[in-house]
This record gives sequence, C-alpha cells and structure tokens, in this order.
Amino acid sequence: MATTGTESINCWASYSKKEDLKPFQYTPRPLGENDVDIKISHCGICGSDLHTMDSEWAGTNYPVVTGHEIVGTITAKGGKVSHLNVGDVVGVGAQVYACHEDTCKFCNRGFDPYCPHMVFTYNGKYEDGATSYGGYSERVLVDSHYAFKIPENIDHAEAAPLMCAGATVYCPMLTHKFKKGDRVGIVGIGGLGHLAIQFANKIGCEVTAFSRSDSKKEESMKLGAHNYVNTSDPAQLEAAKGSLDFLIVTSDSNSSNYETFGSWVDINGKIILLSLPPSELVLSPAFFIFSSVYIGGSLIGGVEVIKETLEFAAKHNIRPVIERLPMNKVNEGLNRVRDGKVRYRVVLEN
Amino acid sequence: MATTGTESINCWASYSKKEDLKPFQYTPRPLGENDVDIKISHCGICGSDLHTMDSEWAGTNYPVVTGHEIVGTITAKGGKVSHLNVGDVVGVGAQVYACHEDTCKFCNRGFDPYCPHMVFTYNGKYEDGATSYGGYSERVLVDSHYAFKIPENIDHAEAAPLMCAGATVYCPMLTHKFKKGDRVGIVGIGGLGHLAIQFANKIGCEVTAFSRSDSKKEESMKLGAHNYVNTSDPAQLEAAKGSLDFLIVTSDSNSSNYETFGSWVDINGKIILLSLPPSELVLSPAFFIFSSVYIGGSLIGGVEVIKETLEFAAKHNIRPVIERLPMNKVNEGLNRVRDGKVRYRVVLEN
Repeated sequence: MATTGTESINCWASYSKKEDLKPFQYTPRPLGENDVDIKISHCGICGSDLHTMDSEWAGTNYPVVTGHEIVGTITAKGGKVSHLNVGDVVGVGAQVYACHEDTCKFCNRGFDPYCPHMVFTYNGKYEDGATSYGGYSERVLVDSHYAFKIPENIDHAEAAPLMCAGATVYCPMLTHKFKKGDRVGIVGIGGLGHLAIQFANKIGCEVTAFSRSDSKKEESMKLGAHNYVNTSDPAQLEAAKGSLDFLIVTSDSNSSNYETFGSWVDINGKIILLSLPPSELVLSPAFFIFSSVYIGGSLIGGVEVIKETLEFAAKHNIRPVIERLPMNKVNEGLNRVRDGKVRYRVVLEN
Repeated sequence: MATTGTESINCWASYSKKEDLKPFQYTPRPLGENDVDIKISHCGICGSDLHTMDSEWAGTNYPVVTGHEIVGTITAKGGKVSHLNVGDVVGVGAQVYACHEDTCKFCNRGFDPYCPHMVFTYNGKYEDGATSYGGYSERVLVDSHYAFKIPENIDHAEAAPLMCAGATVYCPMLTHKFKKGDRVGIVGIGGLGHLAIQFANKIGCEVTAFSRSDSKKEESMKLGAHNYVNTSDPAQLEAAKGSLDFLIVTSDSNSSNYETFGSWVDINGKIILLSLPPSELVLSPAFFIFSSVYIGGSLIGGVEVIKETLEFAAKHNIRPVIERLPMNKVNEGLNRVRDGKVRYRVVLEN
C-alpha cells in the first residue's frame, strides 16, 4: 500500500468558533507496531463535534479536526497487529487510546474510557504531546485497540453513527443490565435517541419516547417506541408519572427539567444523562429523598462495549437513519445540525 | 386493661421553635378495629425530631409532639388485630399509616412509605384531618400494621433506635442488594452512621467510616469498620479515591461536598443520601458524566423493611450505643443532641 504514517493527511479543521471549517494538513506519527492507518470512507457528525468546535466545552485547541464516528479501510498496520488486516473495513469511535496494561485498574476491568492515559479521538493529547485529529479527513492513524471490524451486513455509512451514538446509548443498557420488560424512557429523539429506541426495543424493553411536540411521534413508533409522550401536554405528563425504570436523557437539558424527569421514574429507578448539560444542575434534596430516584451519567463505551454494540446492531438490524453528504460539504452538514433539521444523523462520505 | 383510645394522653410538645418542650395533652381517636394502644416505655431522639420542632423543614404545625423511635407494651387492641396481643412489646417507627389496599401501586409492592395516604408518626395528617402525635409521650395509638413485635433478645431501650435509624440505614442495603465484599462507605458517624457500620459489617461488606477528625476512629473500628478516613487529611482523601461501591451519607452536607463524596466512589457506584440536606444541591454535569457515579436518596423503610431490620439485628447482635434519660428530662436530651455530644443516641424512658 502507498500510504504510511509519515505522509501528511488532508482534513477539514475548525480554526475558531462558529466559523466554517477550512482545509488543514497534518503529519501523523510514524506507524507504530500497534497502529493501523485507515483510509476514511465515512464520518458521522455528532453533537459533540459542534460543542467542541464552537468552544461550548472548555479546552478546545484550534485548529481542531472533529469527527469521531469514523468508518474506513485499513491501508497499513504495525507489526504487532494480529486481529486486523490490510483491507479490513473498520470503525473508530470517540476514543483512540488507553494504556490497556494489566496493572491499570480501569483498563483491566473494561473501563478503558476512564483510563488516566485515555485519548479522545479529537482535541486530545497523547502523552508525547501530540494532538489527536478526528474523522473529517481522508485518513486517520490509531492504536488498533480502537479500530473495530464492521460486521459484513452493516452498510458502511450506516455503521459510522454506531461508533459513537450507538455505543453511547447501548453502554448504560449493558451497565445497568436492561432486560425484557424494563420500562425505558428516552428524552431527546435525535442522533442518540433514535438509536436508543431501537436498542431498548430489541432488548425487549417497553419503550416510551418523550418529545416536545407530536412531530416525531410516527417515526418514534416506527423505530420501536411503544408509547409516546408529548411533553407539552400536561395531561400526558401527569399520566407518565412513575411509569419508568430508566430514563435516558440524550438532549441538552437544564436544571428546571430534572424534577419533571424524576416524576416519570418509579421508586429506585434511574435517570441516565448521556449529554453534558451546559450549566450546573440544581436539585432540591427532597427530589432525591422522596422520589428515591437516582441520577447519574454514562460516558462513552469502551472497547468491549463497542464490540457488543456492533454485534447486537448487526444481529437485530439496528440502523441509524442517515442523511449522506460528500465530505467537502461538511459545512452544509454542520449547519443542518445547528439548525436542528437533521433526521437523524449526517454522515459525510469521501 | 384500663386504657382505651378515648382517654387523654399526656406528652411533651414543642410550642414554637428553639423553645423547651412543655407538657401537652390530647385525646386520640377511639380505638379502631385495626388499632393498637401502646403504653410507651422508651423513645429515641432522632435528628428529624429537631429539624421538625425547630421548623428547619417546612410545615411544622405547633404544638408538635415528636419522637418516632417508640417501644412500649400493647394495652388494648381492635377486633381485627390478629397478629399482636395485649401485653406484647412492640416498636413504632416513623410511619403510622398507609392504605395497604391491594389496588395501591405503592403498598402492593412493599413501598408503603410512598403511599399517597401515608401518615408520618408525628406532624402528620390523617385523612379525617386528625394530627399524628409521636412518642415523647406516655401512650400512642396506631394502626397495627405499624406496630412491630420486638424480638425477645433485644433490650427494649436498645430496640427504640432500630425503629427509625436502624430501618433507615438497612433499607438501602436491601434495596440495592448489598452483598459480601461490597465496599461501603459511611459519612457521618452518629445515630444513623454507627448503626450503618454494624449492618454493613454483618452483611459482609468492607466498611469504611469517614469523619472529620480521628475522634471517632477507635469506636468506628470497634463497631465494625474495616477502614477509617479522616477527611481533614488530604493524603487520606486522595487514597480513598474510587474505593467504594456505595457511599451512605447520614450527616447533613452541602453542595460543595458532593464532588468530594463522588471522588471516593468507583465507576457506576452510588451515593445514597439518608439525611435531607438543608439547601439545594448544585452539581456540575461533568461530575455525573465523567465519574459515572449515581446520586439519590432513600426514604424510611416500610413494613417489610422494619420487620427485616429487627430480625437481622436480633440475629447478628446489632445494637445502638445509647444514653438513657428519663422522659421528663427530654429537654436535657434535646440539648445534648443540639450540642453534638451524644454517642450515639439518646433514649427517653418512662
């Protein structure tokens, strides 16, 4: 193969917030013995990409190359990579490195996203000071732990959103052992939520979609929701009280929402936050004591979760609903996301 | 027996906040067919009593007769009471009524403390408008669902704190299925905490007591803690990071504490609040997402939990450490609690 780790990579970078992305080039590290070099065919646009490029979260280092729902073909691999081959179609999610040492109390329990050495796919720092650049790009070079073979029956464009959105919603379902009959609510029927409905449905849960209008009702039911609550209707809110074992929150939300969310959850149930709200959470203590509802969050899925996500999606025909755009129309795609027009994920194609 | 539900009852009431209790008399309802009339021998002083009499929580209706760790002897019973007899020594905890109808979605699952008809032992309102008065008293008349036979091997004074403090700490251990080997932290080594150490120890958990100085170290270890963290020592705080599956918070705490609490808890672990903090909880969203720690609360234990609490305490020799005072020295007892001098529970005796 012609490409190696030392050839420079053409990609699309954000140079400052709220501005159009422009071309950018960087030279990756030389191909390491555990690395794979991937020619990118597809990359999804995730909400985190916008939070990062628009500096809505702390610590964006410009230029930043976002994109962490990557699918492509391996063009070169290091000498110690035995589980993947040149020519394999693989996906890369939101993480590209963890130590994976037997002595790491995070990695050795399958909690590699919590490893102190973990590196996010973009805007991350490797220990040697190198920056990680993401998938709005022609190529990416990553540690092979974080390249996952895409099951044969999954279309490559559709595979991309499974790498972050899919694994992120399926992760808490594995952690909290969602099972047949569990009553699961999903707030925010978007990139994450429309996949969460499908995963929960295929586990056998009774799924309720929550949205601010009826506009997503028909599609939610088609995706596998059994119930739909229009949260603008007080009567529907009242009827939803105490009706859930788990509530997965995929949308940005603010403090005034949490007691309403809690009211839908049954005693000892859980609110699971998947998106990082922009402001502090202010909660009344009585909310906790008198409801006995627990609230917490779930980070991205680690290596084992991503493997299980792909396997489960392949087996149960779980697929994102996507809009395809050429990679060079990345700015058009980003604007569609900013305007809230996407149903439900933009996937960029090289 | 001479006493019946229509004879007036002498007790000690708070007439306004922060003032000494004074004698008070009231006439209970006539003995109902499901009621028992109890001649009180002992009543513990719980932190909730002071929060209520000092109007630190909303809604205190003066005069209020507090006390919900009651032990006494049944002197009369209604015609439908079959599981208890006159002469039985029974305990009463923080609740004296729930509907217990088969159609109640709370009662029919053992969640009677959440029943919409539930009545707290004091400062509560029955559906007919009658007020509930508690255990700083010579007698109390309650629905027999909420009178629990005290196991023979438990001293009556020592049984009193098991009725609220004991059941309140054991309840989340049952709910969350604490098991041998679980790593359990206890914050606040007081009335609740010193019992929580014992219950968790007897389940087989590895117990860590957290306190602001070393003053409770020796006693905590004697009660069954395996580790002790002096939270004033930064090195001990650092070493405690990620060391727990569950953290039970029995002390009042404020928002600035929760991220420290969370740092002691391992991924997917839980912070369980047992005391109602006086102010709102302000939490950073990153606390949730990046720690994957869940926070919630636990209310009092219901009928089944109280039964299991007494049984487990009797079997495993779990006993509160108490200071006995005559009932007419109730104000002295309250002042000792206010001053934080009690190790670990005052029990009033008639």
